[in-house]
Parts: sequence; C-alpha cells; structure tokens
Amino acid sequence: MERVTGKYYIETPYKLEKAAQVLAGEQSSGTFVAVPGETEELKARFAARVEKITHLETVKEPAIPGATSKTGEYHRASIEVSWSVENFGYNLPVLVSTLQGNLYEITQFTGLKLMDIELPASYSEHFKGPQFGIEGCRQLTSVQDRPLIGTIIKPSIGMTPEQTAELVKTLAEAGIDFIKDDELLSASANSSFEDRVDAIMRVINAHADKTGKKVMYAFNLSDEVDSMLRRYEYILNAGGTCAMVSLNSVGLSGVKKICDQRELAIHGHRNGWGMLNRHPLLGIEFPAYQKLWRLAGVDQIHVNGIQNKFWESDDSVVRSIEACLTPLDNGTTVLPVVSSGQWGGQAFETYRRTQTTDLLYMAGGGIMAHPDGPTGGVVALQQAWKGAVDGLTLEQAASTYPEFNNSVKKFGGK
Amino acid sequence: MERVTGKYYIETPYKLEKAAQVLAGEQSSGTFVAVPGETEELKARFAARVEKITHLETVKEPAIPGATSKTGEYHRASIEVSWSVENFGYNLPVLVSTLQGNLYEITQFTGLKLMDIELPASYSEHFKGPQFGIEGCRQLTSVQDRPLIGTIIKPSIGMTPEQTAELVKTLAEAGIDFIKDDELLSASANSSFEDRVDAIMRVINAHADKTGKKVMYAFNLSDEVDSMLRRYEYILNAGGTCAMVSLNSVGLSGVKKICDQRELAIHGHRNGWGMLNRHPLLGIEFPAYQKLWRLAGVDQIHVNGIQNKFWESDDSVVRSIEACLTPLDNGTTVLPVVSSGQWGGQAFETYRRTQTTDLLYMAGGGIMAHPDGPTGGVVALQQAWKGAVDGLTLEQAASTYPEFNNSVKKFGGK
Repeated sequence: MERVTGKYYIETPYKLEKAAQVLAGEQSSGTFVAVPGETEELKARFAARVEKITHLETVKEPAIPGATSKTGEYHRASIEVSWSVENFGYNLPVLVSTLQGNLYEITQFTGLKLMDIELPASYSEHFKGPQFGIEGCRQLTSVQDRPLIGTIIKPSIGMTPEQTAELVKTLAEAGIDFIKDDELLSASANSSFEDRVDAIMRVINAHADKTGKKVMYAFNLSDEVDSMLRRYEYILNAGGTCAMVSLNSVGLSGVKKICDQRELAIHGHRNGWGMLNRHPLLGIEFPAYQKLWRLAGVDQIHVNGIQNKFWESDDSVVRSIEACLTPLDNGTTVLPVVSSGQWGGQAFETYRRTQTTDLLYMAGGGIMAHPDGPTGGVVALQQAWKGAVDGLTLEQAASTYPEFNNSVKKFGGK
Repeated sequence: MERVTGKYYIETPYKLEKAAQVLAGEQSSGTFVAVPGETEELKARFAARVEKITHLETVKEPAIPGATSKTGEYHRASIEVSWSVENFGYNLPVLVSTLQGNLYEITQFTGLKLMDIELPASYSEHFKGPQFGIEGCRQLTSVQDRPLIGTIIKPSIGMTPEQTAELVKTLAEAGIDFIKDDELLSASANSSFEDRVDAIMRVINAHADKTGKKVMYAFNLSDEVDSMLRRYEYILNAGGTCAMVSLNSVGLSGVKKICDQRELAIHGHRNGWGMLNRHPLLGIEFPAYQKLWRLAGVDQIHVNGIQNKFWESDDSVVRSIEACLTPLDNGTTVLPVVSSGQWGGQAFETYRRTQTTDLLYMAGGGIMAHPDGPTGGVVALQQAWKGAVDGLTLEQAASTYPEFNNSVKKFGGK
C-alpha cells in the first residue's frame, strides 16, 4: 500500500528511537495508555512507521520549551515517519493534521520542524495541481525567455480605484507584465473590490486591444468562500486573468475551492509565513509547504528574494525556488514569485544560483522610484535579467544599459 | 472611525519606537522607499498607528534569527498598534493578513508574538459568533450544572464503523455526554465517513429514543469545502448534532463556511497549534487566536488541560479557559474543550483556578481504561467534578466515591 513520508528535523532530551516512536504513536493508533482495540492487525495497517533516524548533533540547551533533559543533553536528528494512504485518502486537511497536528505539542520534543513530504504517485494524479503554472502564466502574459516582470501597487492601501487604474495605465505603458494588489487590500472604504476591478480592467483591456499584450493583474479576493467565488466571477467577466489569495489567512480548503474553478491563474501569497518558519527548530520548511499548495492548485507562490529586506537567508530563497521548479509526479511545477526589496541588482546572483528565468520577478520601489520613471524601471529590470543571462556582471550590465545604470546609482548603494 | 488593535510582545535590537514604526508602516501604507502616492491625507486615514510601547526587559541574546544588535542588546516590550476598520472592513482573512502577515518576517524584530486583539463593537455585531455556544451545547446534551463529560474514540484510527458504533453504545450506556472522532480520522480505508455516521447515529438515536438523552458526537468532516458541506448535510439528516473541524488544517474561510450553516454545533480542534504558539516570542497567543475562531462561529474550542501530557503550562491553560468565557460585545462565549491526559484528578485544580463548570471535559484512557469499565470511568469523572465543586480535596472525593477512588488508584500515580 502506498505511503506518505514526513521528513522532520527534531530535538529531544530522550533517546531518538523513543521520541520518534512517541511521534508515530501520537499521530496514528497510539495513546497514553493501552486501549483494548489496538490490535496487532490494526497496527500493521494503520500505525505510522519510523523509517529512518539520523543523529546530527547533541547540544546543551533546548531550542524551545519542553521536557528537561536529565543528562543535560538534547539530541538533534533527521527522522522520517510514514503513514499509509489508507489512513486519510486524498484529503489535504487530514493529511496536514497527520503531518503537522498535535506532534508540535509533544513534550518529548524540544524542537520539531517538518522539512519535506514525500507523496506517492497517486497523490499527484488525484490532485491535478496548477491549471496554468509556468507555461500558462507565460502564455497569458505573452512573455517568453525571461522572467515575468511584476510590481505591487504602492501605497499598499489608501488609493481610490481611479488612482490605482491611473498607476496601472502608467505601468502597462511602461511594459510591465504583472501587477498585484497588496495583501493588505481587498476592499477598503475607498476602494471596493468591484470598482477596483472595473477601473483597472478598463485600462488593461484598452492596453491589450492596442498592443496585443494583456497585463496580468492579481486582484486580492481573499475573503469568505462565497465572497471569493463572487469576486472570482467578477474578475473573469471583466476579462481578468488572475486572482490572488493569502494562503495562510484563507486556509487550505478555501484556497482549494478557488483553485478548483480553473479559469484564472491563482497567485498564492504566503504572508504569515514567518510565523511558521522563522525558528530553525519549529514549524515547516518551504519544500514541504509549497507541495501542499501545489496540490491545492496554486499557480504562483511567493519565495522571497535574494538579498531581501526580510530576515531570510539567500540559501533558503534558492532552496525555495528549486523546490517550486521540481515537478511533482503529475509533471506540474509552480511559478516562483521573487519579491521583497528587489530592484534588478539581485538578478545576477539570482540567476547565478538558480540558472532559471522561470520566475515572476517583483519590484515595488525599484520600478516606481526609478530616476527615469516607471518605464525606466521596467526596462532596467529587463536589462538586468538580459545581462545576467548573457553572463555579464552587474558592473558590465550597468555600463552597457543606461536605464539599469540609473538603477544601480539610485538603489545599488543599499 | 472604529479601530482594531493588535497587542504584540516584541523583541528588537533597534530603538523600540523605530521598530514599532517599521511594523506599522509595513502593515499599512509604507514601503522601503518613499512612493509618490503616500500623501498625508492617505496616511491619516489608512496608516496603522503605534498606540503604546511598554519596555519590559533587555536581554543579551536574540530569541529568533534577525538583525544583529550593534550594542549586543535586544529590547523586549509590549506594543499596541491599531488600524482603522476602513482598511479591511468585515473580512476575517484580510484582518489576519493585517495582524499576522509579513510582520513576522521583518528583520528588525528578533521576536514577535500577537498576544491579543481588541475588536470594535461593530465587529462582533457583524459576525454573529457561535450559534450554540455553551448554552446551546448544554441543551443539545441535556447537561446542566456540571461540565459536559466527553471522550475520544481510541485507537484514533483503524476501527471499522461497526466497531466504533459498538464502542459508542458502551459509552452511551455508561452515561457519556459527548464523543468525538480523532482528528486523524475523517474517512479511512475501513471507515468511510457515511458508513461511520450511519452506524454511530443508529446507536445514538436508539439510545436517545430509550432514555431521552442524545449523546453529542463530533464527526470529523474536515476536507475540501464541497465535501464538508455534503458531510454536514449527511450528519444533519442522520440526526446528528455536531461536526468537528480541524481549524488550522481547514483554515478560516472553510471553517466559516461550515459554521455559517448554523444547524450543527461546531467542535473546533486546534491541532497544529503548537507550531503557532510553542515559542514564547513567535506566533500567536490563545486569547488572540480564539477570538478569530469565535467570530467565524465555532461553538467549542480546544484549550488543552491542567497537568496535560503536552508541553503547555497550567497557567497558559487557565488563561485560555478565561479567554473563552469572556463574552464578546455580541454577548457570545465559546465552550472550552479541556483534554490531553485527563482522568478526573485534574478536576480539583481546574475548578480551583477557573471556578467554572462551563467546560467540555474530555478523557480518553481515563474512561476506557477505568478498572470498573467505561461506566465506572464516566461516573468517576462526574464524581470528581461534583467533589471539586463541593469543595472537597482529591483525597476527600476519593474516600467519598468508590469509582473515583479506583481512578485515583489506577491513574493517580502518574
């Protein structure tokens, strides 16, 4: 029978074997006292199995509060635990409760992080995955052979639909591929969702009629299920191609329902991610996280960016991009959304480390605050990526391309 | 204009005022470079406001990775930040993205936890809250003046519907008020959801016909939205009174959709909670967390238990119970579900510290593994609570009540 495997990074004051068995018991057929119904037959079929334990190091201080070590030692290890698909079937929330449920509360652990998930082939057959993904988003925006260049409407909140549409017009004329609402804005007192869609799609459709290029705008429809479905239809009827959801705020079932409509590309925003990931020994790592959202059908997912303004390391960003570009068994990938403090200078290191242009590369201030205006900002980003792919250094690209040179002068000193 | 206030516990190597302003800027109209549209008028209406900063202590080591302190000092403080309701309206996911979004990734913080949320009166007018809550659950189970006594089907997974129904029959005859699926079980290979509902409700309905008492069974319907709605109808048609959802796994929008049906009591399981809460300076505290789920309409929510088998302190459990019993502006409360390693001995300390019987008190092994069988187990729990409310000590209750005395002998040595 097919099995799902969770790979964890753990810390425990107990013997590793014992701690791993507690996890497997708590997350399947065991409880704190023996109960009559727990037969050998039942255990053979439904008990979680500890597959592998690799001791990594032993430390003197616990990472997070839990049981106190009598010897003063806390053991860190990679462990792998597997469950039969018979336990939960093709049910993502129950899969999550199995892989990421009560186990974080077990006192025997002083650290526990879900690092990756191995899914059987049938799982990614059952879940179709993204409807658009990388190729679909390229087709919708008419962009090949370079990253999609995107931006976020700033200020995040407070502009009227008309002001936003004016900005969208400027950005469309500047040659932008993608624009998104900020996650803080869905419907504010001076920008109702419908009015914003109307005003923006009027501009985008007119631009597409004139140029043949339709800018992809990710409208943030995050809300209750019924409202999200109404808003989805509204975007579709207005000629839009994309909707944004805040993954953690809406949750897995709501996001899946939206993705299942399969007519708009779904931009998955991971705000709140730091809460799940920032501690090295608590929560979940991105390789595991992104798999769940890909099964739900998200087409684009945020990965932060090289030399970002947040706390995350470049190594972690690179691992995240690689995870998105690794196909599931159903052959699907997901478009990594690179953002946070990006202005083009990071294109060189991003390309050097990932060797891909299958990215949605987002810059906010890097476009809007460009010395030559937004057109200069968009052109500079295209130049930066062309330079990076052609093997130029940042300095060589700056001396080749005047708009990018102006980016370097304005933003390069940071 | 009404405002929502988030109360945070933070740690930062920067000046507290500066760090708080970064949070307020990131979570409303600011970004990392000045942008043209950020007018004074816009800021006055939509910018988040730092309302209060209370320095608590200064430490030498950061709690979680972030910016390095040049002075070697990291300042801990309580801060309060407020947003106008005009920013997000009555939209729970966007409220969450505002209160718990990118702010966890800000490098200027080396610790950040959302401790509580203050909501304006109109918020709890708009959101009706739980349909049943404490009074409704008491009516559905015919229990007054003592905690509802509940149990979890164990083994968590692997029993057939017939075996489960057999156990439910035993428990119903033993006088149990409430039974729940484990969060690991929704539909397994040998226990389809519908077959389980059929088998169990046959027993529960027959028992109700005979005795007038309907045991409340929380069927775990956690799944995709459409499946949850189908299962909800299935429970309702079978005469059930309750459904269980795994809050974190299903997510806010999916849970709200289920609660909005308002015909079954909704049992909110918080598995995965440790990931959000276990670090003292990362994530969210229960007083904030439970408010969001109460707005969504959950009737019952897990709070762990005194002297539990998990890592959580008794102080934290007591705070959680108090939070559930504090009415929102709309007058609603939510029934706290006490569980984890409970056998009745903890009734005394639980009552001493909370002075309430408005609880769903869950015991697993404490009932099933009782020396006198499940009937003894249920009776012993009722005795423990009667003793606690009457002001007896555990020892006095044990010498008064023979079934509880047997609990003490079997479980009291732990």
